[in-house]
Amino acid sequence: MSGEPPAKQRKLDSKEAFLCVFEQLARDVCEDEYVKRQPAYAQEWISFMQNYNVPKGKLNRGMAVLDGLVTIKPDLTDAEVQEANILGWCIEWLQAFFLVADDLMDDSVTRRGQPCWYKRKEVGTVACNDSIFLEASIYRILKKHFRAKPYYALLLDLFLETTFQTSTGQLLDLITAPPGVVDLSKYEMKTYNTIVEFKTAYYSFYLPLACAMVLGGVKSDAAFDSCKEICVEMGTYFQAQDDYLDCFGDPEVIGKIGTDIEDNKCGWLICKGLEKMTEAQKKTIQDNYGKKNPDCVARIKQVYRDIDVEKDFREYENESYKKLQGLIEEQTFVPGALYMKLLKKIYKRQK
Amino acid sequence: MSGEPPAKQRKLDSKEAFLCVFEQLARDVCEDEYVKRQPAYAQEWISFMQNYNVPKGKLNRGMAVLDGLVTIKPDLTDAEVQEANILGWCIEWLQAFFLVADDLMDDSVTRRGQPCWYKRKEVGTVACNDSIFLEASIYRILKKHFRAKPYYALLLDLFLETTFQTSTGQLLDLITAPPGVVDLSKYEMKTYNTIVEFKTAYYSFYLPLACAMVLGGVKSDAAFDSCKEICVEMGTYFQAQDDYLDCFGDPEVIGKIGTDIEDNKCGWLICKGLEKMTEAQKKTIQDNYGKKNPDCVARIKQVYRDIDVEKDFREYENESYKKLQGLIEEQTFVPGALYMKLLKKIYKRQK
Repeated sequence: MSGEPPAKQRKLDSKEAFLCVFEQLARDVCEDEYVKRQPAYAQEWISFMQNYNVPKGKLNRGMAVLDGLVTIKPDLTDAEVQEANILGWCIEWLQAFFLVADDLMDDSVTRRGQPCWYKRKEVGTVACNDSIFLEASIYRILKKHFRAKPYYALLLDLFLETTFQTSTGQLLDLITAPPGVVDLSKYEMKTYNTIVEFKTAYYSFYLPLACAMVLGGVKSDAAFDSCKEICVEMGTYFQAQDDYLDCFGDPEVIGKIGTDIEDNKCGWLICKGLEKMTEAQKKTIQDNYGKKNPDCVARIKQVYRDIDVEKDFREYENESYKKLQGLIEEQTFVPGALYMKLLKKIYKRQK
Repeated sequence: MSGEPPAKQRKLDSKEAFLCVFEQLARDVCEDEYVKRQPAYAQEWISFMQNYNVPKGKLNRGMAVLDGLVTIKPDLTDAEVQEANILGWCIEWLQAFFLVADDLMDDSVTRRGQPCWYKRKEVGTVACNDSIFLEASIYRILKKHFRAKPYYALLLDLFLETTFQTSTGQLLDLITAPPGVVDLSKYEMKTYNTIVEFKTAYYSFYLPLACAMVLGGVKSDAAFDSCKEICVEMGTYFQAQDDYLDCFGDPEVIGKIGTDIEDNKCGWLICKGLEKMTEAQKKTIQDNYGKKNPDCVARIKQVYRDIDVEKDFREYENESYKKLQGLIEEQTFVPGALYMKLLKKIYKRQK
């Protein structure tokens, strides 16, 4: 007897099983009738580009679909597990599509421990088209596997609406804090919340759970509205944590050195902090934010410590958790576990 | 009595009427529930960006939907005219989405008589997200106007498949002739035909006519397959003309000075020409293609004249016309006028 979980459980949960589905879907895209009509060098580009950009993340979003579905429908057939994982991968493809474009626009250097795709010398701005190709692949996958389902149009609407929301959020993020321009008047909590809701919460939280609900046979609009409200709150909390950890987390634990201050990010700490800074403190921010110089960064962090913005974050964290618990208990459309499983994974996380 | 066409005819055909529909759709996007939730400066960006990029082309593709639909169903209600024009604008939005991205990737300077969108100093690579936003807007428009139609999923499939095809073609174009690299072995007629089919024919020819067929109640898969075959032939011929005119057309008539030679384009003339050049002529091409220098361009054009590639083009033109006529007469799914109207507009055009 070993201490491992029973075989069925392992099959459901394992990242390996999820990655197996990627292999199949990646092959399907490469064997798409239109891709097969391309010269070998174009087929190779597509295959390499897809492998470089799609499967190398934490896969939390993609695996959340099956994770969510089992809370709605505990006894899943193999076919249902497969469907959940396919939708999960569509979310990972969607994320890859956004990240390839975002990295180009943000002038980022590394992503998931390797150079950003556009940074490769043979790629450059071709990344813009690769991003479009990654997005378009989602709908080849959905068509192949879900065209005959009664909820096919619903799925398309869901992915397409999420894309619209995310690009709206990305636009707001880009024009609120353009590289090199520090305009403190733009850094407001209201704007921050809008950026996070649109740029992150819909695709990272609502989309996986909504996919699980579609597969689980949930039909009422009210159920999806309630899911949206909960996911926007959870997604906002998640991003605020990310911003907090970027500045105050242990680089050893979070696995990277935060650069939000240098990158002039419209993050939770700066937005919250500005609400309570003196004019002198604001001046320090104005003079030092968005600069690569470590002394400038240290001055910003000192202001954060002087105003104890960490305390504000802890308060926000407790309030948000309470609010989420309330919203989850209140709704009766789906088992609370659908949300609580996800919330437990992120609440008070250190990385 | 004036010499103008009767009012109804004018209403159907006029570019003004078509542009009126743009105004409505552009307003709809700006008044979308998610756009309305953005700060004023983001709403203004969207409105300006949309007006800058969507309605300023020749509008041939967009207006071809209604033009095609009347050949299938001569007595259209106002609602049917409106639906055709909405789908027409979705095609113009799709084109805007591609062009904004293509210009950034091709490092182009002007588009439709104004600086390329990405060239504006406040835009740059943000154009990449604007392109995504333009694409996502298509599906907001389709959802608003067609969600309740039985053919809604068919329409989504049509636009999404076209996007996949076009991005495949754009990839092939980009990696076949990267800026600054002249690799003559890559310039083959077979590759050229694949680029043109995927990058241009589907979205410029097949999509408008397929939209007309969907609205006209055409249902058989065979009808759509036949339309695809005809449109690929027509689109390929159209692009070959474009390439021919770029080199040999009158700049006064075509309204621009061609730069395909300077831009190292994998065009019809170079692909066809290479099939019959001597090694010495190939050497001249190798040494002079893809250079901004007018002397180099003149040397290329001299080789084209020496081998009389114009004659090849005229032959191809006649053969393609005959082939198209045959294909159109052969099929009985739709009135031949659906295709002939379009073909007459482009055959032996001077601009």
